[in-house]
Amino acid sequence: MSLSARRKRAANAAKAAATDALLVTHLPDVRWLSGFTGSNAALLLLAPKSGAAKAVLFTDGRYTAQAKAEAAGTRVVIAQKNAAVAACEWLAEAKIKRCGFDDGNTTVAALKQMRTSLPAKLRRGLFEPVGALVSELRWIKDADEIATMRRAAALGCRLFDEILGVMEPGMSEGTVAAELEYRARLAGAEAMSFPTIVASGERSALPHGKASASKLPKRGFVTLDFGVVLDGYCSDMTRTVHIGKATDEERAVYEAVLSAQEAGVAAARAGISSGEVDEAARSVLRAHNLDKWFTHSTGHGVGLEIHEGPRLAAKRNQQLKPGMVVTIEPGVYIPGKFGVRIEDMVLVTSHGAEILTPSTKAWIQL
Amino acid sequence: MSLSARRKRAANAAKAAATDALLVTHLPDVRWLSGFTGSNAALLLLAPKSGAAKAVLFTDGRYTAQAKAEAAGTRVVIAQKNAAVAACEWLAEAKIKRCGFDDGNTTVAALKQMRTSLPAKLRRGLFEPVGALVSELRWIKDADEIATMRRAAALGCRLFDEILGVMEPGMSEGTVAAELEYRARLAGAEAMSFPTIVASGERSALPHGKASASKLPKRGFVTLDFGVVLDGYCSDMTRTVHIGKATDEERAVYEAVLSAQEAGVAAARAGISSGEVDEAARSVLRAHNLDKWFTHSTGHGVGLEIHEGPRLAAKRNQQLKPGMVVTIEPGVYIPGKFGVRIEDMVLVTSHGAEILTPSTKAWIQL
Repeated sequence: MSLSARRKRAANAAKAAATDALLVTHLPDVRWLSGFTGSNAALLLLAPKSGAAKAVLFTDGRYTAQAKAEAAGTRVVIAQKNAAVAACEWLAEAKIKRCGFDDGNTTVAALKQMRTSLPAKLRRGLFEPVGALVSELRWIKDADEIATMRRAAALGCRLFDEILGVMEPGMSEGTVAAELEYRARLAGAEAMSFPTIVASGERSALPHGKASASKLPKRGFVTLDFGVVLDGYCSDMTRTVHIGKATDEERAVYEAVLSAQEAGVAAARAGISSGEVDEAARSVLRAHNLDKWFTHSTGHGVGLEIHEGPRLAAKRNQQLKPGMVVTIEPGVYIPGKFGVRIEDMVLVTSHGAEILTPSTKAWIQL
Repeated sequence: MSLSARRKRAANAAKAAATDALLVTHLPDVRWLSGFTGSNAALLLLAPKSGAAKAVLFTDGRYTAQAKAEAAGTRVVIAQKNAAVAACEWLAEAKIKRCGFDDGNTTVAALKQMRTSLPAKLRRGLFEPVGALVSELRWIKDADEIATMRRAAALGCRLFDEILGVMEPGMSEGTVAAELEYRARLAGAEAMSFPTIVASGERSALPHGKASASKLPKRGFVTLDFGVVLDGYCSDMTRTVHIGKATDEERAVYEAVLSAQEAGVAAARAGISSGEVDEAARSVLRAHNLDKWFTHSTGHGVGLEIHEGPRLAAKRNQQLKPGMVVTIEPGVYIPGKFGVRIEDMVLVTSHGAEILTPSTKAWIQL
């Protein structure tokens, strides 16, 4: 889908929310609509009477060249002041009556500053909270986005294979992360999707155990949860492997988590609710009497942001749709002992879920 | 300064702002006050009648073990719901009348959700915007923080020296970043402070030129702007080096930027305003008729966040104080030609500014 088609969809959504314009300040939304990747921006979309939506991008002098190159299809205004405030002055001059804004990504202070910059008579009525209207459009990926995410996910899988040959007892978690991230960069990743998780031994019981100075044990689990960014899009995957001989309990927990993860993948398809996918995975762990150690939700959307909607959590009622890319990542964490998490990134289709991270999930013993 | 002393200062600041409690949801603030490093948290501080401030930390089930270990001095509540909403229920039960919150770090939607979770009679009056009260306390670093930042800055300098031996024409900017980040990780960095900037040749004219697939030229500038995170604290430094023989113009611009940077460092000391430091650097570039290409501010505070206050920008009137750690980083960017930026991280003292990033700023030709 072209950027101009995206802008038209967003402008129409703003119109449906009974506003004449939309002020977009959440940077992934700005990027999705304009192509601009700078760190300071506000994009104003004007609902079209006909034809394409009119778009004005506000940024600062650091980005003059970059904005013109990246956001070729929009008018670029280099502002001396805060980008959102500059957009407000433009709104006032254009005599816009009602402008939507994303109240989930605008701070109380920013809204106050925006309002204060307006002529007194516009202060009350101009801004209307419309929620994450653009972010929700982003939940459904188009063909180009899916192609990019496929590449990112495939790179993640290749890195996982490579790192298996690197890990050994006594190596620090930080070194594992260093080796992984080095290979990611050399392979063209712009960044990692989030701080790499390498959680070994007892630390595998920490769902968010960022790579530390701890050494890989002679016997125990290592959970690797990481992703790479390609052309702005994040990948996300988790595998848990075992070093040395496992106990029966470790092996049993692993198999239960794997069954839960596969049940989640099997349940995911267009039309089902996000809570049903969560329940499909959670109920498997319940049957193993392990659900009390599954202390987080089953998954989340992923794209330009590592955490997007929909949220695959208990009782959530967000309907899955074709083109959504979500994670399915149940885990079991037994405090002071060990933890296991297995995660795929999947593409929701009309008939199921296609796994984008095909690395093996079978038991791996190093 | 102990965590409990920090909490007492924050609670007293809340009291001075005529509130009985303070709801802290900005994660670096939560970490600074409690030690907790998780990704979902709200900290409630109650102004003490006497003795230590009472503190309650709200997080979710992923962080049960971690919160108890890291935030040993605070009461930990594992909430099934949003952490801030859980804190609201606690506030209502404790019959708090006025609670401060950071309106610069609370979204319009979050405040609405917090208010909605309260009993009707509390909705209007309970929450009072008090601004970045905790973040502003964080601007001044204590001895432990300064020691950590010294280590981070020293590691940055060591990495710069190492990477000089790695760079050569034809190597991609991404590979330079890979080599730098790999060494950072192996040396114990938890993360990079921000996406590493390696901007070479014409790309050096982009103030925020993240490392790309572009190759280092046979002749031209390379700007390296990067930082490492140690124990949560960020370092930040920039050096610009030249590959091959430079033109007279390149050399002259480099010397002008260096003079501007040194003038900024010379001006920085406790008691001076942040705008005066900016002007000290900017006026040097003005004298060289280069100020129109200096399109950003001179610097910013740094600590648990890569960008903190004070902001060293034109006409800003934030007073520098001993213990602040700020960057001084003027640059000149000539579109389509080249750019130069030189940046130190400095510690403000009563009599001047101590450079924490002592890597040479003399002309380097590779």
